Amino acid sequence: MSYVRGLAVAARDAQAAIASADGATRRRLLQSMAEQLRAGQAAILAANADDLAQAAANGASKATLDRLGLDPERVQGMAEALREVAAQADPLGEVTRREVRPNGIVVERQRIPLGLVAMIYEARPNVTAEAAALCLKAGNAVLLRGGSEAARSNAAIAACLHAALRELGLPEAAVSLVADTAREHVLELLQLADLIDLAIPRGGESLIRFVAEHARVPVIKHYKGVCHLYVDRAAGIDTAIGLLIDGKASRPGVCNALETVLVHRDIAAAFLPRALAELHARGVEVRGDAVTRAFDAGALAATEDDYAAEFLDLVIAARVVDSLDEAIAHIRRHGSDHTEVIATEDPAAADAFVRAIRSSAVMVNASSRFNDGGQLGLGAEIGISTTRLHAYGPMGVESLTIERFVVRGTGQVRHPR
Amino acid sequence: MSYVRGLAVAARDAQAAIASADGATRRRLLQSMAEQLRAGQAAILAANADDLAQAAANGASKATLDRLGLDPERVQGMAEALREVAAQADPLGEVTRREVRPNGIVVERQRIPLGLVAMIYEARPNVTAEAAALCLKAGNAVLLRGGSEAARSNAAIAACLHAALRELGLPEAAVSLVADTAREHVLELLQLADLIDLAIPRGGESLIRFVAEHARVPVIKHYKGVCHLYVDRAAGIDTAIGLLIDGKASRPGVCNALETVLVHRDIAAAFLPRALAELHARGVEVRGDAVTRAFDAGALAATEDDYAAEFLDLVIAARVVDSLDEAIAHIRRHGSDHTEVIATEDPAAADAFVRAIRSSAVMVNASSRFNDGGQLGLGAEIGISTTRLHAYGPMGVESLTIERFVVRGTGQVRHPR
Repeated sequence: MSYVRGLAVAARDAQAAIASADGATRRRLLQSMAEQLRAGQAAILAANADDLAQAAANGASKATLDRLGLDPERVQGMAEALREVAAQADPLGEVTRREVRPNGIVVERQRIPLGLVAMIYEARPNVTAEAAALCLKAGNAVLLRGGSEAARSNAAIAACLHAALRELGLPEAAVSLVADTAREHVLELLQLADLIDLAIPRGGESLIRFVAEHARVPVIKHYKGVCHLYVDRAAGIDTAIGLLIDGKASRPGVCNALETVLVHRDIAAAFLPRALAELHARGVEVRGDAVTRAFDAGALAATEDDYAAEFLDLVIAARVVDSLDEAIAHIRRHGSDHTEVIATEDPAAADAFVRAIRSSAVMVNASSRFNDGGQLGLGAEIGISTTRLHAYGPMGVESLTIERFVVRGTGQVRHPR
Repeated sequence: MSYVRGLAVAARDAQAAIASADGATRRRLLQSMAEQLRAGQAAILAANADDLAQAAANGASKATLDRLGLDPERVQGMAEALREVAAQADPLGEVTRREVRPNGIVVERQRIPLGLVAMIYEARPNVTAEAAALCLKAGNAVLLRGGSEAARSNAAIAACLHAALRELGLPEAAVSLVADTAREHVLELLQLADLIDLAIPRGGESLIRFVAEHARVPVIKHYKGVCHLYVDRAAGIDTAIGLLIDGKASRPGVCNALETVLVHRDIAAAFLPRALAELHARGVEVRGDAVTRAFDAGALAATEDDYAAEFLDLVIAARVVDSLDEAIAHIRRHGSDHTEVIATEDPAAADAFVRAIRSSAVMVNASSRFNDGGQLGLGAEIGISTTRLHAYGPMGVESLTIERFVVRGTGQVRHPR
């Protein structure tokens, strides 16, 4: 049996023990994982220092080093995230629907684990702990394949998680690290459709495209966030300005940041001069259409590519539209099904926007930055889906379960003799 | 643009009109489709007669001819199925959850359509009408690629569906038939991940493996049903006999028929002689282990392959086990995650079985034959999933939707200035 298949078989076999542990045991397991991370902090930081030195020597970018680096505060943050997941309600066994059929059989829908989840991610050691916690909370086993730059950090974190599993008498293989990060092992892992129930890639667009292109296992993915703010003719100007600045300038490098603002022609003169001044004051580069640029000599001309871009930077595209329908058509053409916002005081406009837009999150007078598992009340998130299948939007613990049918009868048959 | 991409783009564009039609309009559309099928019956039967003649000339099997053939009763049945789907509650717009967050934003989960669904199926003309109805009910467009043997029948049925779409002022392309059934078009269709949200193959295992192997679009599938009946030591004998005969003999060619019976050793002497006699009386061939055969000189010896087989015929594998755990281990090893049944009067044994089994349907004292959308209360079904992602078990209208987030605020931002 190959290296990766051996890991997957062991993890799948271990999953039965996690699934049959009761909710209190899985809660204690996650609490113990948090304690082990605190206790292991020195070892984790030492391993991380080695990873950082190696990565720096290999010429890693500042962004990579920032994602890779841990400090006591970040390790405590990981432990705290695990405690929060531990505290959530047990998703397993929940009966979501119940119906008595005319023949007397009782049909229930009940949540069970997905089974074995494979996480494929870049050099973010915190994902190792948080993904494991979310998977275990939902009764799953997890295969963790993090970036090679974080190999030592991930091994140190996994050692803490394994200590907690041992403490609870549960099999360590329920959290299995793919320690050999050679690319051929990822390719093989993505073929194990008989063992792996779901693969979740987390990282840049190229990683996600690689996984999507090579996977025979089901994949839930999220390529990018080209998020729009539409400022309706009936928008409150202060509200619209607040949504624009929060959406673009509070953290431009994340997927729920705004990339394009669309402004109704009737409100352009009232909104744009102030909006553009606020953006410039925060160092945001504006790339606009001719109407926008008439309000702002400093704005560059927007190209078609700008309207499809995820800038991940202090840059925003702007366009003045003649109607709500034109805004919707623009979003349909250029959007990424992530997050779209309308600023309006007109309930009919808000309803029309919500009906017509089919992104994973639609916000009425609320910031795009709220499209986040924590902000939307899911607790931690294992990823975000912009694919309309299984989950759409941030994925919490519940997204790591599936509903099955349980039928209870008293001997009913379909064709009585 | 290629033939298939052209069809998919037109269907995707038409989907917006279906999604924005209100529930009453979509209901009238399905009722009109049923009426058009009744009105078009003569044309459909004439086309079907041509298909049958061609298939017979090509040496098609009796089973294929049976699935392909239509008569007035079957056409009326299709129309009736459409009326039943029409009568179901509108799944769109339903708010499944609602929460007010501490900052005052209101977070709703709301059902929206998946988008564009591709059905890939064999020579079953009824699927053309029923899949279209289920997809449209849930606000989706559908690409229909049926077997080439049914090409004329499918075109005649699609003409009726298009007449209904025209009557309601909706775009015909919402139901798009891939009339050119050349295999390269299916292969291309399965690559259109930018246009197709879900592919559902329906047919034999080889069709489903072909789709799963070549698809870059998401696929929900169901390979086979190796369904088990476990007769617990505390089973009611009459109940167990009833479940066995209904499960194996009422319709052996379907996926929710039983393939294996597992019998607790303590009840074997009370159960097996009568069970085996009842099976033989219905012409069922038994392939058993040594203990089973000791009760029945007529039984053949079961091989390992027999325990993994979907016989789809009047054949059943039998085995005597020492415990509930041994039954569960057998099912884990040989099952297909479809349907498993326990006959027992012991609530603790029932609970242990339900907890340990992770198939899409688990039945306690109820027949495996109830694993069917209609029987479980879903109305019609578009397929069945044995993959633990998105849907698990029979898939009704609701399985053709996804929940997204709608957030309503009064200007809330994540980082107030």
